Amino acid sequence: MRVGIVGAGQLSRMLILAGIPLGIEFVVFNPQKKCCVSQMAQVITASFEDQQAMQKFRNSVDVITYENENITIDQLKAIAQDKLVCPNRDVLTTMQDRLKEKTLFNQLNIPTNTYYPVDSKSALEAALDNITLPVVLKQRTNGYDGKGQIILRTKKDVMKLTDSDCVNTLIEEYVAFDREVSIIAARSEQGEMRYYDICENRHENGILHSTKNRIDDACFSEAKKHITTIMNYFSYVGVCTVEFFEKERHLLANEVAPRVHNSGHWTIEGAQTSQFENHLRCIVGWSIGDTHSVDEFEMHNILGAINQKTKMLRTPGLYFHDYAKTPAPQRKVGHVNVRARKAVDISSLLVDHL
Amino acid sequence: MRVGIVGAGQLSRMLILAGIPLGIEFVVFNPQKKCCVSQMAQVITASFEDQQAMQKFRNSVDVITYENENITIDQLKAIAQDKLVCPNRDVLTTMQDRLKEKTLFNQLNIPTNTYYPVDSKSALEAALDNITLPVVLKQRTNGYDGKGQIILRTKKDVMKLTDSDCVNTLIEEYVAFDREVSIIAARSEQGEMRYYDICENRHENGILHSTKNRIDDACFSEAKKHITTIMNYFSYVGVCTVEFFEKERHLLANEVAPRVHNSGHWTIEGAQTSQFENHLRCIVGWSIGDTHSVDEFEMHNILGAINQKTKMLRTPGLYFHDYAKTPAPQRKVGHVNVRARKAVDISSLLVDHL
Repeated sequence: MRVGIVGAGQLSRMLILAGIPLGIEFVVFNPQKKCCVSQMAQVITASFEDQQAMQKFRNSVDVITYENENITIDQLKAIAQDKLVCPNRDVLTTMQDRLKEKTLFNQLNIPTNTYYPVDSKSALEAALDNITLPVVLKQRTNGYDGKGQIILRTKKDVMKLTDSDCVNTLIEEYVAFDREVSIIAARSEQGEMRYYDICENRHENGILHSTKNRIDDACFSEAKKHITTIMNYFSYVGVCTVEFFEKERHLLANEVAPRVHNSGHWTIEGAQTSQFENHLRCIVGWSIGDTHSVDEFEMHNILGAINQKTKMLRTPGLYFHDYAKTPAPQRKVGHVNVRARKAVDISSLLVDHL
Repeated sequence: MRVGIVGAGQLSRMLILAGIPLGIEFVVFNPQKKCCVSQMAQVITASFEDQQAMQKFRNSVDVITYENENITIDQLKAIAQDKLVCPNRDVLTTMQDRLKEKTLFNQLNIPTNTYYPVDSKSALEAALDNITLPVVLKQRTNGYDGKGQIILRTKKDVMKLTDSDCVNTLIEEYVAFDREVSIIAARSEQGEMRYYDICENRHENGILHSTKNRIDDACFSEAKKHITTIMNYFSYVGVCTVEFFEKERHLLANEVAPRVHNSGHWTIEGAQTSQFENHLRCIVGWSIGDTHSVDEFEMHNILGAINQKTKMLRTPGLYFHDYAKTPAPQRKVGHVNVRARKAVDISSLLVDHL
């Protein structure tokens, strides 16, 4: 069985590490220079204009998946052509556009915060008659890790904007949430679904800093209901993530990541079967593995650079995951999973030194 | 950090899979055609006569380890020269010769069965005055998985032997043991040691079929004492295994494997830190990870061919490890680790179909 992955970042790396013990071989199409999977798979480094490289990639695999949703639908069509792609193109079309995503939530009766599509500064100002500041102005496409988002707190913030800042955006009510949580689920071609325990997430400056799995959390059944609705709607095959704001015990859907997700990295050691293994099991047509947590876990991202590896390795119950990346400010260069019951304070080891 | 491994079989494969998340890079020197690590590391396929290839290997790594003890000491010297090798050459010199190994056990006051060195048929017949049949005739070198061993049950069996069958051998008392157990330990350069729980092993025709970890087994402290003596004697750095026969609650040392071991494959999911990760941590000079079992586990080897993968993947609590090997009768082509408390009978899925 040969799986093709578009993208060569850490998600690709962890998919490959999960797949090798299952006997899966990998071919990676890498449209960038950066590569976290060299010497772990056959890597084809080429652009989406290189028809020959894309054909070689397509012809050498049984199924294609992609590492993130920033690939365009045209790129996906060009590279995959008739080859099976999971998650499918409808998922990608919707999820790479925040407006389509929000519209779908509403269509499927999944609660969200209030939002308005915006295309110009005047449209923004008109929308602000119906929604009180602060609001979040978000680009419809290409946002991740807090990029493409601005919080507008005052009228002054609004005045500073140009017309071009507002093209292809939406504004959303700023939610003073009690918790940020996500749910990750796997769905097979036959429609079988399994769910990981709720991930309770802490972001800073739009970047995920840490996650705890919350075994049998109070919002688990509500989150399961929503992700099931979404995945069934698309006949989704693979692993999917939905992020929510929780406010006064109710969930507001924030966004869908049609893939394995940073908030699920604890599953590598913390669940019976990791999100990476289950994504592969689904897309190659094998059964979904048990998703139960094996223990309480915490995941901490390492941002910037890995400076304290040997100290971290001395921490009991800590599992280290190095992405073999070049250091850069706020870049996710690795993560650690820690058995929470053994946890010691490792915050001093996680400082971003860049 | 770059680790060089001599050998490209499943142990090399599992070392690499454990090391990648730690940020270790690997270069493998593969003296054979068979390769379980292609696309997981830089592989140099060459013979021990190829000085240039060996130099390239040596110069591209920080430390060298070997996958099995069948590499000769001359080969190891040729390939490593002044580069750090773990475990060191004294370990290898002793452990690849059963007579030296047994002699060391005695020297260190570690009990063994009775044995006599043999070099000819007449020497064998003389030795049989002091030891009663059945006995096991073993080659001093190159034995593994029951190869190079014959059980002599009757005088007829002895009569059939030629002089050349007896060159460079020893005979040992055949032990009607109650259990076969092994202990695996990791030792750092500073002499710190950590121990995995006792492995209770079941062999068939000299090949390991299955292992259970026995948490706080009655023989744990005795086994720890013996392996500590051996590892301290050699100033051993890395992971080591000692196999014992248990008879009437006493341990008789059978053999030492100066490496990660098949009876420790359960540690991948069954211990806080796997034997593979701990071998690497020791040889690169990092701290030893926690060796406690996380649960009761069983390891079953898959021999011959993998025929029932999708069925096995449906088994709750089962972890699959495919070595990507060409099928062959009795060849170890993979293993499964199973959480014992969830265990269902998977024996029908493990039949050797070749």
